[in-house]
This record gives sequence, C-alpha cells and structure tokens, in this order.
Amino acid sequence: MKKISVLGSTGSIGTQTLDVVSKYRDSFQIEGLAAGSNIDLLAQQVKEFRPKKVSVATKELADRIRPDLPEGTQLYYGQEGLIEVAAATDADMVVTAVVGSMGLPSTLAAIKAGKTIGLANKETLVTAGHLVMSLAESRGAAILPIDSEHSAIFQCLNGERRQDVDFITLTASGGSFRNLSRDQLEHVTVEDALKHPNWSMGAKITIDSATMVNKGLEVIEAHWLFGLPYEQIHVLLHPESIIHSFVQYRDSSIIAQLGNPDMRVPIQYALTYPERWPSPSQKLSLAEAGKLQFLEMDFDRFPCLRMAYECGKMGGTAPTVFNAANEVAVSRFLRREISFLQIENIIEGVLDKHQNTPEPALEAIEESDRLARKLAASL
Amino acid sequence: MKKISVLGSTGSIGTQTLDVVSKYRDSFQIEGLAAGSNIDLLAQQVKEFRPKKVSVATKELADRIRPDLPEGTQLYYGQEGLIEVAAATDADMVVTAVVGSMGLPSTLAAIKAGKTIGLANKETLVTAGHLVMSLAESRGAAILPIDSEHSAIFQCLNGERRQDVDFITLTASGGSFRNLSRDQLEHVTVEDALKHPNWSMGAKITIDSATMVNKGLEVIEAHWLFGLPYEQIHVLLHPESIIHSFVQYRDSSIIAQLGNPDMRVPIQYALTYPERWPSPSQKLSLAEAGKLQFLEMDFDRFPCLRMAYECGKMGGTAPTVFNAANEVAVSRFLRREISFLQIENIIEGVLDKHQNTPEPALEAIEESDRLARKLAASL
Repeated sequence: MKKISVLGSTGSIGTQTLDVVSKYRDSFQIEGLAAGSNIDLLAQQVKEFRPKKVSVATKELADRIRPDLPEGTQLYYGQEGLIEVAAATDADMVVTAVVGSMGLPSTLAAIKAGKTIGLANKETLVTAGHLVMSLAESRGAAILPIDSEHSAIFQCLNGERRQDVDFITLTASGGSFRNLSRDQLEHVTVEDALKHPNWSMGAKITIDSATMVNKGLEVIEAHWLFGLPYEQIHVLLHPESIIHSFVQYRDSSIIAQLGNPDMRVPIQYALTYPERWPSPSQKLSLAEAGKLQFLEMDFDRFPCLRMAYECGKMGGTAPTVFNAANEVAVSRFLRREISFLQIENIIEGVLDKHQNTPEPALEAIEESDRLARKLAASL
Repeated sequence: MKKISVLGSTGSIGTQTLDVVSKYRDSFQIEGLAAGSNIDLLAQQVKEFRPKKVSVATKELADRIRPDLPEGTQLYYGQEGLIEVAAATDADMVVTAVVGSMGLPSTLAAIKAGKTIGLANKETLVTAGHLVMSLAESRGAAILPIDSEHSAIFQCLNGERRQDVDFITLTASGGSFRNLSRDQLEHVTVEDALKHPNWSMGAKITIDSATMVNKGLEVIEAHWLFGLPYEQIHVLLHPESIIHSFVQYRDSSIIAQLGNPDMRVPIQYALTYPERWPSPSQKLSLAEAGKLQFLEMDFDRFPCLRMAYECGKMGGTAPTVFNAANEVAVSRFLRREISFLQIENIIEGVLDKHQNTPEPALEAIEESDRLARKLAASL
C-alpha cells in the first residue's frame, strides 16, 4: 500500500491523479489533499478518498468547507496548510500539482521530510532547481517527473548510463497557434488561445503552450532534473504530440517514448515506478495515426523559448523572473487587459530591468519573484 | 579488452562488425574469423586483424588461401572449421553472421562453450529456438541480437520488467515492391527485387524483405529471443525504416528505438552492451526526415508473413521447413529459374506436404531441412 498526498487536488493533474488512484484502491491510500478555492470538488474528493489532512487556500474557505468534512479530518489553510499536507502526513509520495511558483515552499518541505516527489509543479525546479536538487540529494528523496515530456525522458533513460547520453529532445506541439505567422498572432483572442489541439489542460498552461513559454520552463526543468547542460537539451516541433520526447545516445540510437496524449499515463508511471501497471488509457495505434511530422524549432517565431534558454543559461534569479513575469502577463491576457503578443513583450521588458543574483537563497528568489510580478503588472 | 570471433566475416554483417572493431582497436581483439569462399577479402581481414584461427568453406579454398596467411595462423575448413572458430578460441563473444541454416551447428557449439552470442544468423532461432534457448540458459550464455529490429526491442526492454510488456511491434519497410499490387508482382525481375529502398544488404535478405519472409523469420526469432507468444508479436508497415521496432507496455506507454538505417549501430550495441560508445554513424535528424508513416500490415498482400506466423505457432519442424523452402526458392529466383511470386507458391507447396515433428532434436531438424530443400528444388 503506497501512501500519497496530492497538492493541487482539484486541478487538472490533481483530479487525474485521483482518477488513477481510484483504479487501484487496494494499492494506494490518500493521506492528504490540498486545494485552492474549489471547495465543492474538494469536499467530494475527501468523501471518496478519506484523507487524514486537508488544506484550502484561505481561512474563509476553510470555514466554509468544514461542515462538509467527515468527522476527524484535520483541516488547514494557506501556505502553512499546504506545507502541513506536503510534509506532515505518513505519505510516502507527494504529488506536487499546484500551479505556479506558490508550489515551491511546500515541495521543499516534502523533500525535507524525505518524501518521494511526483513533480508536476514545474516552477519548483525553474525557480529553485539548485536548492531543490541538492536538498533532494542530501535527503535521499527521489524526484519523479509527471510532465509528459519529462516522464518520457525519464522512461527513455531506464537502464542506461548517463554518460552515454548525447542529448535529449523535448517535443512541442506548437500549441494553439502553431500555423499562424507573427502578424496573424496580433489579434488572436483568449478563446482562440485556449483551444489546444492535442492536450486538454488548464488555462494557464494552454496559453504557455501557445507562447512556447511552457516548453521553455520544461527545458529549464529538464536541465535540473537530468543534470544536463542546456546545449544537450533540444526542442523539436512535433504537431501530433505522439512522441512525447526522446533521448539521443552517443552510439546514434534514439530511444523515444510514445503514446496518445493522456496525462494519466505519466501520472500513473510516477505512482507505480519502476513498475508499469495496466492503464485504462487508450492504446496508441501508429497505423491509425498514419503519420508523425517533425519541424525544426523556430526561435524567431517563438521568442519566449529563446528567452527561456537565455535565462536558464544565466541561472540565478533569471528563470524566476522569466516565470513570474509570464505568470502575470498570462493572467493579464486572460483578463483581456493585454494582447497575446504583449505577453512576450512584458517578459522581455521585465528581464531587461532584472539584476541577476547568482545561487540565490529562497528569500532572494521570493524577492525577485515579487519584484518581477510588480513590474509585469505595470508594463 | 573484449575478445571476439566472427562467423561469416566477409558478408554484409561480418564486414560491418569488423568496421566497428576497427574503430576501437584498443578495446576489441579478433580471435577467429570464418568465411565462405571470398578468400581474397578474408586474407585482407586476417592481415588487418590477426586472428589466431581462420576457417573457409572447403579444403580447396583452404589450400588456396594458405600462402596468404601470416605465420602461425591456424587454418580450418568446412562445418568443422566453422565450429572450431566458434567454440575453440579464447573469444568472449561470437558474432554469428553466417547466412542460412548452416549457421546452426556452430552457434550451438559456441553456446555450449559458454560464449556470449552476437546473433545475426536468424535461422538459428527459427529452426532450433527450443534447443538454442534452453542450451543458452543452462550454459549461462547471453544471446544479444544484432538484427536491427531485435536490437531495437532489446534496447526498449532495458530496465523494464517482462511482465509489464503488452506486446512488441516489429516494423517492416515493405521492401523493394511495397507499392506494387500482386498483379504487378507477376513480372518483376531479379534486378528490381535487389533494389531495397532503405537498407543496403545481401541479396538473399533483400529478396526476403520484398516477400516479407524476412519479417516472418524475425517474428519467429523474436518469439524465442524474448519469450513471447505470437499474439504478443505484431508487425507494422513503416516505409522509412526509422523506427526500428518498439515495445508497447501495459500502462499504454510505447518505448521505441529510432535511427538512420545503419547496421553498425545494432552491431556495436551488441559488442559494447550494456554500454553505448560513440559511433561514426550519421545521427538521425527527425526534422530532416520530416515525417514518419505507418500502415497496417496486409497479410493478403504478403502471404509469406501469414505462413511464417502459422509455422511459428505450429512449432516443431514447421519453421525449419518454411525457412528451407524459402532458401531454395530464393536461390532459384536469383538464378532466374522461377518468377518472384513462385517463391511463395513453392513455400506453400512444401509446407502442404510437411508432416510436423514436435520438439525435434537436431537430427530431425536437419532431416526436415534436407527434405524441404529437395522438394522445393523440384516444385
């Protein structure tokens, strides 16, 4: 019986994690669930999975959900509540599926407590990769990727020696606007942007997919997760999202992981690793798919990806600022305050003004994050 | 320093094996070389690689090559010579690249001697899989595949549990005539058949590729090599030959091995396994490849593949007879005695008359082989 806590249980990854858990009720026990403000869904989840500890975003939300919780459920709220669910349960594994940089302190707390991390919060490694990886090493905490691309790379590295890796390639669908020129991008709407061709995901990540910021964050995440320099991390356009990513070895062999786009597969892999259990996910038929296409990445068409590589190579607080500026810009786009192309302008504007701090401690990261958000809101 | 003997050193796989060895002269030592009748090339190889033992097909060829061999080289000939080079040297590994069922006794001798086998002679497992695998298990001899498809599957199984495999898929280019209908196949010539679109191979295997006999033999080989029932071995048409084969796991993940068509890569993998060393082979660029296509296999278009599955499932001497009948039929086609489509008619005719012997000993296999050849020559 594997004991699991889920941070961000009502989001896209959180609900799919519980979907996987519900298929194997005899093998998994939910110890804790942390959500934001979707207390109706959280109440349902608590009823079904009976966690010992539950957390919501605010005291007010805690007061509202309390009457709906079974007797004996311990209720928490805020950043402290998130940390409680992350670190202070009997869970062997913590799935970190909180969206954005607010997921960092709770992930660090779970690693400190020696939990295995099912990492879906990519900002954790983007903003604090140097802290997270050294802490994980010293605590002997395994970090298992849940993002489909990183799970693919992780699977393709199975049984292989790291020194035999030539480079890794993250595939990118190109997002909602992959066929539009930059001129055509001028006037796209929020509704257009939210129509992702392959994956059904949350709003933020769907926009990040269209701007290629998401791939940029994944490149930085891969740098930390697999200990590879940026020169050994490539990105390839692959509209069908069927090859989820691949590893090129120095003997010229490529090992790739393929499947239909279904996040339950990488989620389940992290939960059952190193085993593979049957999944209800639809099996891929390559004959039905018919063909797979590949195109060189265009860094002029997708300047956010170029900026992500630059920030990654720079290190320090630069990736934090890149991520924070993007989070604010995407929120502003979703609120229809700015146009789609202004997302990249805002990121660029914030980066231009940023003074990089190398090897930052958590406080410096948080301070850079705060300043970047403030600036991004004003541009 | 790994010590290696090569059986079939002047053929396509043999020369490419020596090409790989020549790139790593400090890591590999050639102990023995066995060839057929190409004594000029063999003499060159002996000069370059200085094996202790050498064998050729006949006494007459031995007499002819003797003056060209360096002092102290031990010279043998015939089936006994092949066995001497296979089993009676200090080699750790024997690459079995003899074409056809004549490769069986020497491979068995090498396994008996506890050598690691780099298996390129697929007839070994096709005709005597039950003997070979149980002997290999009892002697603790590893069998490493060199065929690109089986090497791909072997690589995709790295670090995985066998019970997690759902099925494996061998890809097939479709061979020289993949775009021709059965009517159009009536009048194709030997020259047409020898133009393989992707791989540069020997004549026999190029014809076997066009009839899909080669894929059928690979299916039977995979059955023994990976211990999978035929229902778990699929074949998929993939014209570009870039995905060399793949494993579908029960969690819906597919792990695939890709690369440019270059036999030096699977050869080198067998020689360096479990490590991967740098290869001069051209790296695959999927962006340059542009697209990969896949089509359902058509068992009516390729009846030889259907027959191979039937023989494999039947077991006993049926796969031996399938293989022997095909070898004779292909020779007759290459000698222009029969048309291309008569290859399958001859195989079918011989199989129709075959009385299957279950779990045959080596003598029964050889007797079936002999009878099948005799019949195939007369149809």
